[in-house]
Amino acid sequence: MTVNSRPAGPVMLGQNQYGKAENRVVKITRDGATHHIKDLNVSVSLSGDMEEVHYSGSNANVLPTDTTKNTVFAFAKEYGIESAEQFGIHLARHFVTSQEPIHRARIRIEEYAWERIETSDANSRFIGADEVKHSFVRKGQETRLTQITYDGSTWEVISGLKDLTVMNSTNSEFWGYVKDKYTTLQEAHDRILATSVAGRWRFNWTTDEQKMPNWEKSYEQVKKHMLHAFAETYSLSLQQTMFQMGSRIINNRSEIDEVRFSLPNKHHFLVDLEPFGLKNDNEVYFAADRPYGLIEATILRDGCEPRIPVDLTNL
Amino acid sequence: MTVNSRPAGPVMLGQNQYGKAENRVVKITRDGATHHIKDLNVSVSLSGDMEEVHYSGSNANVLPTDTTKNTVFAFAKEYGIESAEQFGIHLARHFVTSQEPIHRARIRIEEYAWERIETSDANSRFIGADEVKHSFVRKGQETRLTQITYDGSTWEVISGLKDLTVMNSTNSEFWGYVKDKYTTLQEAHDRILATSVAGRWRFNWTTDEQKMPNWEKSYEQVKKHMLHAFAETYSLSLQQTMFQMGSRIINNRSEIDEVRFSLPNKHHFLVDLEPFGLKNDNEVYFAADRPYGLIEATILRDGCEPRIPVDLTNL
Amino acid sequence: MTVNSRPAGPVMLGQNQYGKAENRVVKITRDGATHHIKDLNVSVSLSGDMEEVHYSGSNANVLPTDTTKNTVFAFAKEYGIESAEQFGIHLARHFVTSQEPIHRARIRIEEYAWERIETSDANSRFIGADEVKHSFVRKGQETRLTQITYDGSTWEVISGLKDLTVMNSTNSEFWGYVKDKYTTLQEAHDRILATSVAGRWRFNWTTDEQKMPNWEKSYEQVKKHMLHAFAETYSLSLQQTMFQMGSRIINNRSEIDEVRFSLPNKHHFLVDLEPFGLKNDNEVYFAADRPYGLIEATILRDGCEPRIPVDLTNL
Amino acid sequence: MTVNSRPAGPVMLGQNQYGKAENRVVKITRDGATHHIKDLNVSVSLSGDMEEVHYSGSNANVLPTDTTKNTVFAFAKEYGIESAEQFGIHLARHFVTSQEPIHRARIRIEEYAWERIETSDANSRFIGADEVKHSFVRKGQETRLTQITYDGSTWEVISGLKDLTVMNSTNSEFWGYVKDKYTTLQEAHDRILATSVAGRWRFNWTTDEQKMPNWEKSYEQVKKHMLHAFAETYSLSLQQTMFQMGSRIINNRSEIDEVRFSLPNKHHFLVDLEPFGLKNDNEVYFAADRPYGLIEATILRDGCEPRIPVDLTNL
Repeated sequence: MTVNSRPAGPVMLGQNQYGKAENRVVKITRDGATHHIKDLNVSVSLSGDMEEVHYSGSNANVLPTDTTKNTVFAFAKEYGIESAEQFGIHLARHFVTSQEPIHRARIRIEEYAWERIETSDANSRFIGADEVKHSFVRKGQETRLTQITYDGSTWEVISGLKDLTVMNSTNSEFWGYVKDKYTTLQEAHDRILATSVAGRWRFNWTTDEQKMPNWEKSYEQVKKHMLHAFAETYSLSLQQTMFQMGSRIINNRSEIDEVRFSLPNKHHFLVDLEPFGLKNDNEVYFAADRPYGLIEATILRDGCEPRIPVDLTNL
Repeated sequence: MTVNSRPAGPVMLGQNQYGKAENRVVKITRDGATHHIKDLNVSVSLSGDMEEVHYSGSNANVLPTDTTKNTVFAFAKEYGIESAEQFGIHLARHFVTSQEPIHRARIRIEEYAWERIETSDANSRFIGADEVKHSFVRKGQETRLTQITYDGSTWEVISGLKDLTVMNSTNSEFWGYVKDKYTTLQEAHDRILATSVAGRWRFNWTTDEQKMPNWEKSYEQVKKHMLHAFAETYSLSLQQTMFQMGSRIINNRSEIDEVRFSLPNKHHFLVDLEPFGLKNDNEVYFAADRPYGLIEATILRDGCEPRIPVDLTNL
Repeated sequence: MTVNSRPAGPVMLGQNQYGKAENRVVKITRDGATHHIKDLNVSVSLSGDMEEVHYSGSNANVLPTDTTKNTVFAFAKEYGIESAEQFGIHLARHFVTSQEPIHRARIRIEEYAWERIETSDANSRFIGADEVKHSFVRKGQETRLTQITYDGSTWEVISGLKDLTVMNSTNSEFWGYVKDKYTTLQEAHDRILATSVAGRWRFNWTTDEQKMPNWEKSYEQVKKHMLHAFAETYSLSLQQTMFQMGSRIINNRSEIDEVRFSLPNKHHFLVDLEPFGLKNDNEVYFAADRPYGLIEATILRDGCEPRIPVDLTNL
Repeated sequence: MTVNSRPAGPVMLGQNQYGKAENRVVKITRDGATHHIKDLNVSVSLSGDMEEVHYSGSNANVLPTDTTKNTVFAFAKEYGIESAEQFGIHLARHFVTSQEPIHRARIRIEEYAWERIETSDANSRFIGADEVKHSFVRKGQETRLTQITYDGSTWEVISGLKDLTVMNSTNSEFWGYVKDKYTTLQEAHDRILATSVAGRWRFNWTTDEQKMPNWEKSYEQVKKHMLHAFAETYSLSLQQTMFQMGSRIINNRSEIDEVRFSLPNKHHFLVDLEPFGLKNDNEVYFAADRPYGLIEATILRDGCEPRIPVDLTNL
């Protein structure tokens, strides 16, 4: 496009991006009779020299979103899916380096975990039970997340998870808070603390010159540290527990500089059984839906700049 | 009510029921420092001598739904929650035997499983790590179901599960089907077979005189048999796999007389990579959302009457 | 299939059905520059001589679900979509009459309504504003439903809707109910009554010899009568309001013999503002999610048999 | 707190906020027999001097989230709900000005529209039909949004909507795009263009000294301009249509300086009916779920700074 057809008048185009969202790609790898699954939901978002398509509808600089979809599936064959992060890096590099008008690619990926169905029965009909290496059940716990952004020189990798629901049935208190004219809450010295973790963490791997982290191991370790911090913190507030969760990651995983949490306080209210002549000794709770507390923070390695958007929220 | 105020005219009241749905009760049991969770969603539905409330709005025979909610929470304290089935039996018996106008109670329960957070770190702040016996993560796999119906003399217990997603990455074929003028499907000799199991099974325990099944063990065994049958069946159609899943339950669990499945065929389409000069050797699949095949059947013990409604469907 | 390969042993096949669910078909009809939309979600379910596919995996009697999908789209062209009911009748008749092993077809359809975008501006860029007859906004209110069942001789048509949320902000009371030891509810003499209507109604059109109802007009009239009955009933219980809604349909629509409702009582609790020195004179409510009352009933024309399954529930 | 108990080590606290999310408040205003509804979902998020609660769990600066909930309900009584924006302004001002440690409040509100049930029947039982001024049906179309942010001196008001689904059944093309080795898409010269609008727009009202916009009228006008621009643009790409929608707002509404859209391209694929001997003359479409194009941009008044976060996305 040589002619910029920006309309006359007071209107300007700001940040813009486009691509194909939610490409559901499943990759089966066969190691003899033993199969392996990678199950991803891949969203591509591209930016660059895209004024014209907004101004005049000229698609001369537009790689169709359908093409970005095809590329996701083709790359699953060409590169395999070693990890969601590595797969996103292949894709982002491709879009930025192969199309001149594209200056930036952001790849978001959700990953769903599967585990093998263990069989030991002797009553298999066609095959010996110990040969069943192609049968899986979806794990169904958290959804793993990653977001890869590349501008041709610098990488930003933010991984994370959502929908990991945890509960401490004791060792949580809440008291000593501000009381104003709208405060009716009673202080609690032994309550349930439960949340559904939505967390994201940013890697300090930013250039091809650096050694790439082991993405799979990093994920497992981060999840472990988060869960341990949640379990082991005697909590006086969900903020304190959240900060411990983030600190544990920063302290133990040198590849990570920043963590962001968005934690709903999934209230479990002690039910008043007195009207029925019963004493509720921290036994029977009502699990409420709405409203819920929502506690969010960034936890950073000292001296690092925060880059994870604060609006990647649960809400 | 001595006066039946049925309106004049051609209108009749048919089957009716009412109650409080989705009471989210969480029960914590403390065995010293070791805690146990039961996490249920309990729905109460009552029927009986309820014409008047429909005709005139007289609530003289109506136990409020709010009271049924209170009863759920009170019973969690009074009886504990040994199993979802046992808890439902306590509730159903109570409503039918304590209120003369109530002739039938149906209790539906969803149960969400939790597992312990395993900790072994030495860096616990307040407590020794091996003391953490009150920290849980939601398992997040299938939702367990039960439905208890009681009319004052006979019990019907239908248990089940939903959202258990399984996949075989080979050993599935589909060919030899009817071809009419609208048929374009190519025969498949090695395809992915995946489904999200929604299943229900009916117990032959119907009276208080019979020995009650071990509900917890029964559930674990039924789930195991279903998964094994899914994994071990070399499949020529999802119907065949489904029938094997049901048969395995009937053959192995004498407490169960009837099984009903509603199985979406979660299509994984092999992506055509030829336009990109690539060969897709059963490696790269597109996981489709809609439309999907939906395969449903009842599998019965010989001589038994089917009682599970066919409309407890996925759709 | 001449050989029935029913497995030895105590296992029997019961009711079974299969087909392609959730075919999302959109039909545009062009009347010159004026376009019309029909937007449906069509699910096909077939039954018949299907033992073998369950026993041995032989697909010799199985019309593929993929073919049933193709048929939905082809019929949208061949017959158009006059109404969801008429479209389902075409499909059901086709499957039962064209394939010998298929003895029964059930077609379920959801319909989404659209309305025209009204334009009157003079600043249209390419076209005169009053020519814009191809632009629509989804109405977004209730989802219309129908279910057509055909066994080769008799039709059953059950239509309905879901997700129609209604509220009366006064003229609702609840008192005079049973009080047992678990009752804490206070009587209410002016409360909000709100529900999300899920209703189904059965037509007495059952054979090709009868004159077919005007499906579109019938739907509009039934919806109108339901809404009017809801608005005009001074309510002493949701059951009473529900019975009025059903009665109004039976009394006014001779083509309908049976109605079934599943009505969640969407509780709006008056908030206690006394702790803040404020009087809440039926002004400020908390709209609760769970638990909720669930009120269900069949309302019938005198002398008719109920046929709408009671398990087509909201739960 | 006089002692800052920031832990030793490399960990820092970054941006943090907390509050009660999703307070479902319904306000009924009675103008004689004529009632009016405001139905909101209000989320409060507060920031300020909150280090200690993260470091040590001291709640000395923490106004409980339960109190923020109470405040929402109390303010519905004290101030009424003139508009979502005005209600959010009352709340934000209160939190920032009444609690010294709170330096910033962000109020997010969803609003659900209701319309009156029109009645004209003569068969009302208790009341004259034309007196029914307290009966409503939820409109069910888009959800209206607003977000109010206040730091004690400057206001930021970003309003918007989501889930407004629109379709043009013609006057949309897509051709002339980049073709690389992964491109298989055929050019289209008459296609369906459909999207579910998620939009946000920022007001240039930022201080109490300025005249406040008429929030209700502004919303109606912005929605109208968006719909008209969608209907009246002959589209060569969704980007072009989106830019027109934003431009129309900027050009017509002087109170708004910035618009951000996140528009899924809800693909309607023309079904290939040739295998069945049928010609599909832009009549029968398959409405696909995933994947979908996702087109996002900011449209600004010339010279204004973009402030709407780009991550308030559909994805």
